Amino acid sequence: MKTLIKNVNVLLPDGTTPLTNLCIDGDRISHIGEVPDDFRPGHVLDGHDMLATPGFVNAHTHASMTLLRSYADDMELMDWLNKMIWPAEARMNREDIYWGAMLAALEMIQTGTTSFADMYGPWMDAVAEVVSDSGLRGVLSRGLIGVAPDAEEKLAEGVSFYRDFHGMANDRIHVMLSPHAPYTCPPDYMKKVAAAAQKDGIKIHIHMHETKTEINDSLKAYGRRPFAWVSETGLFDGGATVAAHCVHMDDEDIVIMQKYDIRAVHNPGSNMKLASGVAPVPKMLSEGICVALGTDGASSNNNMDMLEEMALSAILHKVDAYDPLAVPALTSVKLATEYGAKALSLADVGRLEVGAKADIVLFSMKGSKWTPRNNLVSLLAYSANSSSVDTVIVDGSILMEHKELKTLDEERILFEAQRSARHLTNA
Amino acid sequence: MKTLIKNVNVLLPDGTTPLTNLCIDGDRISHIGEVPDDFRPGHVLDGHDMLATPGFVNAHTHASMTLLRSYADDMELMDWLNKMIWPAEARMNREDIYWGAMLAALEMIQTGTTSFADMYGPWMDAVAEVVSDSGLRGVLSRGLIGVAPDAEEKLAEGVSFYRDFHGMANDRIHVMLSPHAPYTCPPDYMKKVAAAAQKDGIKIHIHMHETKTEINDSLKAYGRRPFAWVSETGLFDGGATVAAHCVHMDDEDIVIMQKYDIRAVHNPGSNMKLASGVAPVPKMLSEGICVALGTDGASSNNNMDMLEEMALSAILHKVDAYDPLAVPALTSVKLATEYGAKALSLADVGRLEVGAKADIVLFSMKGSKWTPRNNLVSLLAYSANSSSVDTVIVDGSILMEHKELKTLDEERILFEAQRSARHLTNA
Repeated sequence: MKTLIKNVNVLLPDGTTPLTNLCIDGDRISHIGEVPDDFRPGHVLDGHDMLATPGFVNAHTHASMTLLRSYADDMELMDWLNKMIWPAEARMNREDIYWGAMLAALEMIQTGTTSFADMYGPWMDAVAEVVSDSGLRGVLSRGLIGVAPDAEEKLAEGVSFYRDFHGMANDRIHVMLSPHAPYTCPPDYMKKVAAAAQKDGIKIHIHMHETKTEINDSLKAYGRRPFAWVSETGLFDGGATVAAHCVHMDDEDIVIMQKYDIRAVHNPGSNMKLASGVAPVPKMLSEGICVALGTDGASSNNNMDMLEEMALSAILHKVDAYDPLAVPALTSVKLATEYGAKALSLADVGRLEVGAKADIVLFSMKGSKWTPRNNLVSLLAYSANSSSVDTVIVDGSILMEHKELKTLDEERILFEAQRSARHLTNA
Repeated sequence: MKTLIKNVNVLLPDGTTPLTNLCIDGDRISHIGEVPDDFRPGHVLDGHDMLATPGFVNAHTHASMTLLRSYADDMELMDWLNKMIWPAEARMNREDIYWGAMLAALEMIQTGTTSFADMYGPWMDAVAEVVSDSGLRGVLSRGLIGVAPDAEEKLAEGVSFYRDFHGMANDRIHVMLSPHAPYTCPPDYMKKVAAAAQKDGIKIHIHMHETKTEINDSLKAYGRRPFAWVSETGLFDGGATVAAHCVHMDDEDIVIMQKYDIRAVHNPGSNMKLASGVAPVPKMLSEGICVALGTDGASSNNNMDMLEEMALSAILHKVDAYDPLAVPALTSVKLATEYGAKALSLADVGRLEVGAKADIVLFSMKGSKWTPRNNLVSLLAYSANSSSVDTVIVDGSILMEHKELKTLDEERILFEAQRSARHLTNA
């Protein structure tokens, strides 16, 4: 299948946005520029008044938590978890996991996300089904609680999930292993996860240094900060670990990230709403750390909208550092696209260039938020909202065209998600 | 003209959102609840799957700066002003002011804002024309630079503007006087403005304590902080002054605000983007200060979307104070509605209750961002974006119904605004 996007402004990796043409052949971008004479598209999209960007990469989320959207807000963290979130999660069955992830997929497609990294469970096979059917790209992992009585079983389940699903759906499904966090997984368990991961070559996705409490508790329990002791369990030895949050970081933590090529996922909306703190994003970037963006779960955000995270990443660090140049518009776009793909080890994703995977969003630039068009990157980062997402393409397949969904049944998803939510929260 | 909104969730001042009916008679809300037998509406709106909220009050902006949207971003403040913004503003003619304000009006209606406070000029009569024709409610003021050679003339112009326009368009146009800021208006000029304002009973709208530099420069020049010396010029004596920003505040500043009943307008998006600082909103609220919300100009935001400011106000102060309860969802909604109306001295605006002005927004709750509907106020503050603004009513008149604009010609406005922007920025 060949698709041509004609006369479209294309956001290139260097930040320029020329008016040109974009050719898709199969799952890849085959040309940007003049359309070759022998390129015969089966489908042509008119790119007039459109900006083509790489699809957003939501590098840390818990998709099925969309079911808990607006269920519990404005609470102290431990009250929120103990009294509301964990009891509701304990009632989740496979149908809930499925419809929650479907609701997330619906919102992601409508807001321009083409790849997501999901840490959740049980029934991650239901999430894999959602990835397969929706057409999205998913990096899935079963969250592992090392202190739980069934921790060993869950690890085995995580490895089986990898063996069964990694590389499926034309390689749109990847699988990682997810020891939940240093405060739920003691050193011995981390060692077991590390051994299992490295045996199969599975990458790690973990929460790190989200709150001050986590750091202080680690200092009390182990005499060291989490990055320090976890690095000694071998967990990071496989390289390219995805570390969500990285809010409270000292120089030694950053040295460890450099040494093991650990990637940070910044979740500004969640970190602000839960009052976790401000991650040192400009510092990590200047130290050569790959920083991606994520929404975290919808219960602490409260949505899956990467354009909002992008805008937050651009303005939060300016005020935090009293530096209006801290995270410029183009950097925020790269956090949400190119760096996200790199963080998740998604080869050839996150940049619009010849040979790359055709994961593309077309933004309609009609309307007041895109007027006047002085600078398209600034408009994208600072002014637009996701209602201008018009068309979404993943792996060369169109998932939404002029706002019409091609793979999902919106009415059904909204109905089933509302029903699941009632069953979880009205108990 | 009578309008009935049937079977709608109504956000009441106490934060509850019952499913009920809302009756509009002329420019006011006549009933909420059972529809009286003798209420015969000329127009009925189906409120199914809709949330009715008070229209947003954008309590500090510079509407025509929409023309400079995305023209100059990611720059140091003084470079931004000296090299980009001020030269472009110097090229503005009456047509530019008009189409810039029209572009702002278009965006405001589409994003649920029903009242705005605009400080700009010259040609504020062009902005009054926009208010009159769009159907919005506007609190307009001519910005006065005390150090300019024509400062006296401009003050006279500001007073004439008040006499000509205050109370026009069924009282939808109010006029204030706007000495720009303490760093552009020396004490003698402030005294003249104070005298002129109090002679005609004109309220004041001014920038106060936006940056650290402003405080430090004032300490150098006058040996005191701006609030201290400005209060002695008599500028605040008329009461109910609108003070935009109030970022850098000490206890004495807050005592002055209390003493003169000064209202703060918080502009989180602009303060973050320009790296100005974080206003002490929770502290001001707990001290009984009326705090409103504003977008500031679109060149430092970069849009006029009050829902984004609301979300920012709710999450910024949580992370700033390490307190997840700092500004709860309902408080952020009140900043954007009830407190905004109070700050601007707009009587009977900002609350949905019997007898209030019918300034109402209907949000469509269809779609993923509003699913599941565990808590409508949380969904509004943390999850929704302005694309769910469906219908906008001001003073009982429908300005937008199911996204169809009733007073504005969108195509024309976008065309003319783009043309004006070219003339300003391509010089």
